[in-house]
Formats: sequence, C-alpha cells, structure tokens
Amino acid sequence: MSFDATAADILQEIIVHRRDVRGNRFLSRPLEQEVEDKLLMAALNAPSVGFSQPWEFVLIRDNAVRQQVKDSFMAENEKAQAIIGDDRQGAYAKLKLEGIMETPLNIAVFYRPSDKPVLGQTSMEEAGLYSVVCAVQNMWLMARALNVGIGWVSILDAGKVKQILNAPQENKLVAYLCVGYTDGFYTQPELELLQWEKRKMKQAVVFENNYPEVP
Amino acid sequence: MSFDATAADILQEIIVHRRDVRGNRFLSRPLEQEVEDKLLMAALNAPSVGFSQPWEFVLIRDNAVRQQVKDSFMAENEKAQAIIGDDRQGAYAKLKLEGIMETPLNIAVFYRPSDKPVLGQTSMEEAGLYSVVCAVQNMWLMARALNVGIGWVSILDAGKVKQILNAPQENKLVAYLCVGYTDGFYTQPELELLQWEKRKMKQAVVFENNYPEVP
Repeated sequence: MSFDATAADILQEIIVHRRDVRGNRFLSRPLEQEVEDKLLMAALNAPSVGFSQPWEFVLIRDNAVRQQVKDSFMAENEKAQAIIGDDRQGAYAKLKLEGIMETPLNIAVFYRPSDKPVLGQTSMEEAGLYSVVCAVQNMWLMARALNVGIGWVSILDAGKVKQILNAPQENKLVAYLCVGYTDGFYTQPELELLQWEKRKMKQAVVFENNYPEVP
Repeated sequence: MSFDATAADILQEIIVHRRDVRGNRFLSRPLEQEVEDKLLMAALNAPSVGFSQPWEFVLIRDNAVRQQVKDSFMAENEKAQAIIGDDRQGAYAKLKLEGIMETPLNIAVFYRPSDKPVLGQTSMEEAGLYSVVCAVQNMWLMARALNVGIGWVSILDAGKVKQILNAPQENKLVAYLCVGYTDGFYTQPELELLQWEKRKMKQAVVFENNYPEVP
C-alpha cells in the first residue's frame, strides 16, 4: 500500500510532540483497555532481527510491586546525584524523574535471547536488544498519538528489578515505562526548557561519506 | 496539543506496513532532498537519555566507500552461514540480506558517548545506545510514511565499518541502513512469508505484574 502526503505530516507531528512524561504531570485516570491493546499492537509489530521478536512485557498494576521498583529508583537516584557532580547536584535534586506510583500502569520491557542462532544477529549480538528498543519507541509514539504519556525510567538497578519481577536469569531489562494520561505535554523536551542540555545542530551530527580527517 | 483518533489509526497503518527492505526490491531512483530532510528530522527528534542526543549519522553515497562496506558484509555473511547451522544453510544462502549497492543512500548511525555524566545514564549505561536506536526507528517509520524502504544491515564487522568511515575510536556503530524507493512492500515480514520464523502470540510474551513461578 502507498501512503499519501498527510501520513508523513501526521507522523512528523507525533514525533515532534512526543515527550518523556514525569510523575508531576501524570493523572491517575485509568487507561482504557483499548489504549493498552493499541500500545501492545505497536510493540508487537516492531522490526526485529531475523524476525526473532525477542521481547517480553510485564504489565505492572500492583502497588506493592511498583513500590519495590520505586525503592530501587530512590537508591539509584541518590547515587546518581553524587555522580552528576557538585555544580549540578542541587538542580538535579529538584527534578522529578519518574512516575512509578503516579501512573495507572508500568511496563517492564525485557530482551529474551534466543536459544538458537538468529539470522542477522551473528555478527552484532546487540541487534537483539535493539529490536526491543524499536518496540519501545513504537509504543511511545502510539501513546503520544493517543494523547497518553510515557516516561522511561533508566535510573534503576536492573538486577533488582529482575528479581522483583521474577524474571528469568537470561532475560535483560531494557526499559521500564510509566504510562498514563497527563495534564499536558511540554512544547519542548523538559531538559531543553530547563536549559539542562542544549539542542544539537544538524550540521554537528551529520557527515557526508565519512568522518572528516582530524588534523 | 491533542491528536484526534485518525492520528493513532494512521500511525498504526505505518507501523504495521513498515518492512525491512532488501536489495532485490530496491529501485535506483534517487531520493529527493526533502525525503532526506524528513528522515533526519525524524531522527533528531527521537527521545534521548538526559537529552544527550548521542547520535551521529554518516550519509554514504560514494560507491567506493559502499563497496568496502559490502566487502565486510560478504565476509561476515559467509561466517553467518556456518553459524546458522547445516539444516538451514541452503535456505540462508538464497536470501538477499542487504541493498548496500542497490540503494542511492546508505546511512551509518553511530553512538557517541558523552564526555561528562549524563542524567538518566548513571545506572544503565546502555540507555545511550538505546537513544540512538529510537532515532533509527523514527527514521524507519518516517521512510515508510514516505513510501521509501529501509533495510537494516547488521551482518557487518562494526570495527571494519568504523575504519572505513574514519569514525572516532570512542564511537560505536549502532545501525547501517540502506535507503531507497522500492518496487513494493511485502504484506508481511519477508521471514514470516518464507516461514523462516513464526509470529509469536501476544499471550506468550505479555505477563501481568510479574513472571509466573516456574514449578
């Protein structure tokens, strides 16, 4: 099938208006079953190396389970403040970086390695992990199209989260997502608005044919 | 801003009809500048951990450069045939798995680590790589919306490709993409059509609250 010009325009809008949503912006309003179905549909139709579909999803609603994950966040976030450096520690401490308890749904996304060789994964083993990330990005865009927020929490001890969720030893935690309606999406990434980081110019990250020789 | 219901419907169509396109399906027709601009716009608006935007893109048109990458593919693909196992070696050999020379544009996508600690990357270092994968998936979806095919080649020696493209030592090759118009998109993933792998059922990969206890 062939898409007309409006498809790319709408996709561009979705991409540009997608945000990482934090706990201070989430609403407790429950997610409709249809929303959950559409998010998973988006994930399950992601590309995967050798059509291996190496993803697994744990939908977490239980408060006791989420509180344990939140505890891991708290411990890791304390360590992070020290790593991030003295000059920015105060600004860092003010940021709300997750919505684990504020959202109606958390989704832990795992990579499950195949037990046989996978087409396309023989030279770059990490292609399996990348397939799982593509599934996450599909969900993130679908959520935005449905006016639902997602926040990706990476300030976690992956080993602890695996233990909390009783995940198989061979699985790897790729993403931990907080999913819920929001009171609004920022016009720009929050860390750009707060001048935490500057937006990079296209010319600084795009090269022609190869990297220039360093003199 | 708020999207109406058509946005999610169109995004679903784009997601479901996106394919990994191979060399036997690509057309040599050049890509318009506007297409290239839209692909890069999609990439540069991907989510990134701590708004670090840790991506770099090398747009490769030069035939001599591409031939060197193709040589790496040929060597790695020969190794892959042995790994994939005797029973499937014949079927594997028949597959056309890249379109490096057939497409008007190749894009090598790199992760460039930050030289200072990145917010959100202090516990899970790999979150930086995942940001780059999100950029790739954004491009892939935008390409499909523009009726342009992308094939992701992972059967490459990443070290060789870095050397060919004169990439900085600290950079990591995440993806190598072949980009071009196509004579058609398959209705299903090619490896599903060829019965190389079966589609997984949702129930097999989605769990509630945690993984079930193994008896």
